[in-house]
Amino acid sequence: MERVDCLIRGGIVLTIDDDGSLWEPGYVAVRGGIIIETGVFDPSVEARLCPKEVLDATGCVIMPGLINCHTHAAMTLFRGLADDMPLMKWLQEHIFPAEKKLKEEWVYWGTKLACAEMIMAGTTCFCDMYLFEQAVARAADEAGMRAIIGEVLYDFLSPNYGPLENGLGFTDALIREWKYHPRIRAVVEPHAVYTCSPDTLRQCLDLAEKHDVPMIVHLSETEDEVMECLKRYGRRPVQHLAHLGLLSPRLIAAHCVELDERDISALARNGVTVVHNPESNLKLGSGIAPVPELLRCGVRVVLGTDGCASNNDLDMFGEMNTCAKLHKAVWLDPTVLPATDVLAMATRKAGKALGMAWDVPIGMIESGCVADLIIVDLEKPHLIPCYNPVSHMVYTARGSDVRDVMIDGRWVLRNRELITIDLDEVRHQVSKIAAQIIRC
Amino acid sequence: MERVDCLIRGGIVLTIDDDGSLWEPGYVAVRGGIIIETGVFDPSVEARLCPKEVLDATGCVIMPGLINCHTHAAMTLFRGLADDMPLMKWLQEHIFPAEKKLKEEWVYWGTKLACAEMIMAGTTCFCDMYLFEQAVARAADEAGMRAIIGEVLYDFLSPNYGPLENGLGFTDALIREWKYHPRIRAVVEPHAVYTCSPDTLRQCLDLAEKHDVPMIVHLSETEDEVMECLKRYGRRPVQHLAHLGLLSPRLIAAHCVELDERDISALARNGVTVVHNPESNLKLGSGIAPVPELLRCGVRVVLGTDGCASNNDLDMFGEMNTCAKLHKAVWLDPTVLPATDVLAMATRKAGKALGMAWDVPIGMIESGCVADLIIVDLEKPHLIPCYNPVSHMVYTARGSDVRDVMIDGRWVLRNRELITIDLDEVRHQVSKIAAQIIRC
Repeated sequence: MERVDCLIRGGIVLTIDDDGSLWEPGYVAVRGGIIIETGVFDPSVEARLCPKEVLDATGCVIMPGLINCHTHAAMTLFRGLADDMPLMKWLQEHIFPAEKKLKEEWVYWGTKLACAEMIMAGTTCFCDMYLFEQAVARAADEAGMRAIIGEVLYDFLSPNYGPLENGLGFTDALIREWKYHPRIRAVVEPHAVYTCSPDTLRQCLDLAEKHDVPMIVHLSETEDEVMECLKRYGRRPVQHLAHLGLLSPRLIAAHCVELDERDISALARNGVTVVHNPESNLKLGSGIAPVPELLRCGVRVVLGTDGCASNNDLDMFGEMNTCAKLHKAVWLDPTVLPATDVLAMATRKAGKALGMAWDVPIGMIESGCVADLIIVDLEKPHLIPCYNPVSHMVYTARGSDVRDVMIDGRWVLRNRELITIDLDEVRHQVSKIAAQIIRC
Repeated sequence: MERVDCLIRGGIVLTIDDDGSLWEPGYVAVRGGIIIETGVFDPSVEARLCPKEVLDATGCVIMPGLINCHTHAAMTLFRGLADDMPLMKWLQEHIFPAEKKLKEEWVYWGTKLACAEMIMAGTTCFCDMYLFEQAVARAADEAGMRAIIGEVLYDFLSPNYGPLENGLGFTDALIREWKYHPRIRAVVEPHAVYTCSPDTLRQCLDLAEKHDVPMIVHLSETEDEVMECLKRYGRRPVQHLAHLGLLSPRLIAAHCVELDERDISALARNGVTVVHNPESNLKLGSGIAPVPELLRCGVRVVLGTDGCASNNDLDMFGEMNTCAKLHKAVWLDPTVLPATDVLAMATRKAGKALGMAWDVPIGMIESGCVADLIIVDLEKPHLIPCYNPVSHMVYTARGSDVRDVMIDGRWVLRNRELITIDLDEVRHQVSKIAAQIIRC
């Protein structure tokens, strides 16, 4: 007789596999942190599997946890500190002065808060870029989250590691330290073409290749970035990276708002993954990335929230909603970016993009995948009636509809109660830090 | 010694008055459905007012209830029935066949569901356009909501009233019936320039003038509408209405996506209110209304969700969020539509637009205004820290953060429990109707 750790049964299982398989009523069986079975539920399943724990999900959707492919988690500390102002004023008068005072402890608590918010909104994995990433790793690990972390690398002094050469060494050590962790991995993260010299970018590539890990960069976020790059290097940012040999399936490029046809074809030809951050691009007035065109050309596009200073939340349900609607208006065509495609961008496709970091696949409900899954309650007024659960997950559900969250086979949210995070302590610590930030 | 029905105290009061006054810790005192006092709280206030009921709102925002200026409430029944398809296919193959079977009972239960959703997301007042509006009025009245209702009028047969002449009579009777109700008012609602002949529009105007009530119309929603109107009448929709004498402070025009300079100046000159429905315009691929330009020219712009078939929810927090971000990207300027302005569009300005329907002002927390207010819980992870409560209400809060809702001095939501609506019954009835709709 088989034995499983947990059987979740009775809801609608959205597998998000390539065929869009859906089981209703469905079940998911988990053992040792891995999904070992999924399908249509009937009572014989339960008798056969002899589960240690059974969770009823009737009236709910069971689906893969959402994957936030680009954020600066600890920037929760700056949420709403300064909105509605020009980009340079925002950066130079508010964000940079606050970040100059940044301490490891601030990043730790800011990330803890971010983990609480993400878990409560159904995000099970995030890809972070910030300072003091050792604190991000520690906070994410304690929260039970899956995370890709990476210290931001650039040509000026960092409040964490000092000069760049230390940063490369710091990243090297970070990658080694987390190499065998079940949920956390470190990667190489040069900031952008306007903050990293060609030599810095090449050194980053060497380090990423040495460890065979992904490399993450901000790319072509604004028109100003493109203009400056053209002036300095005679090439647009994407072409500049192509010239330096950085474009490859290893590269995950955040934003990609300002692209011309040649840029798009270079990204496609080289298998670069693009992280679309629609809400941040809107709020900062950066523009709207040509996502339908990227998809048409075969680029893998995934989703991220960016940091809380420019969003102002970490809710991937909101990000899916914005993404699915926004491009329809740009193209005056309600058929672009249908819900099925957008849901895959936040799960299966994101899992494939980050997949090289882990041995076991993430982002789907399929036997052999890691047990990162969420249960979404459909009994709320705004989710009634339910003709199409995929549509509901993209166009109607919000983070607050997530009832339970499992990461790596372990419950981190049950009935909307956080299990791994003491929210009162986080609130207390962040309040103290916020009082110091206001004085910056 | 004075006496009040209810004293709410301890939170941050956002009055949304013209000066942006904010009281922290604040209080709001209510008597006979009217706000009689608001200001900074101290214990002497409570001793002086001798309230029958005291509600503590520490850690919360107290603000005016949100006003949804354009919706088709009962279309909750079609939520997610058909997404991601061309407009004409959506209308002709899915929405129209379902609406042909429409019955008063369906509209009643669909509206009840909409009221549950709106109350739970902090909306206290809505402006509706649909069929069988007698059922909308009944459902809204029972739910304790404030509503402006109006039977949709057009030149073809209605499943409710039959031919147009009956529709005008029906509207006339509806206006009389609800004229003295404390929360419900009926108005005149011709559908659009492409479904109403010039004669129909003129008759509607006569009726609205006779009763001195607002008139509501869909206007310039798509490029197709503009092209068709030009072909039929030689004028763009706004100019067509101007020519017929319909542009006036009485007119509330929904959508206004496709406007040229002359259209905008005609709307401004004639004091027309425009209802911006950003999420519906995005999802249907209609485009993006020129809201910053409308505001610059002095047009009063308010917000609506449109119906659930094209949104797919009735969450005005989401609508504010989308509105505040969207136009920044169109204009490549993060300073357009700041949070303060957007919050006013969903409260004070909306109250002024609908104000002629009631004797007492709505949409602000100020002595003499109706007691339509909401209490938003700030203790959630995504609302920590709170540097700026106005920013939080627009960029971060969601409908699900609303803890309590009072309409006309009466609690309709307490600790997220609906008081006026039996949600189990609504769910049961809507499920039965949804099963019939699928068979349409």
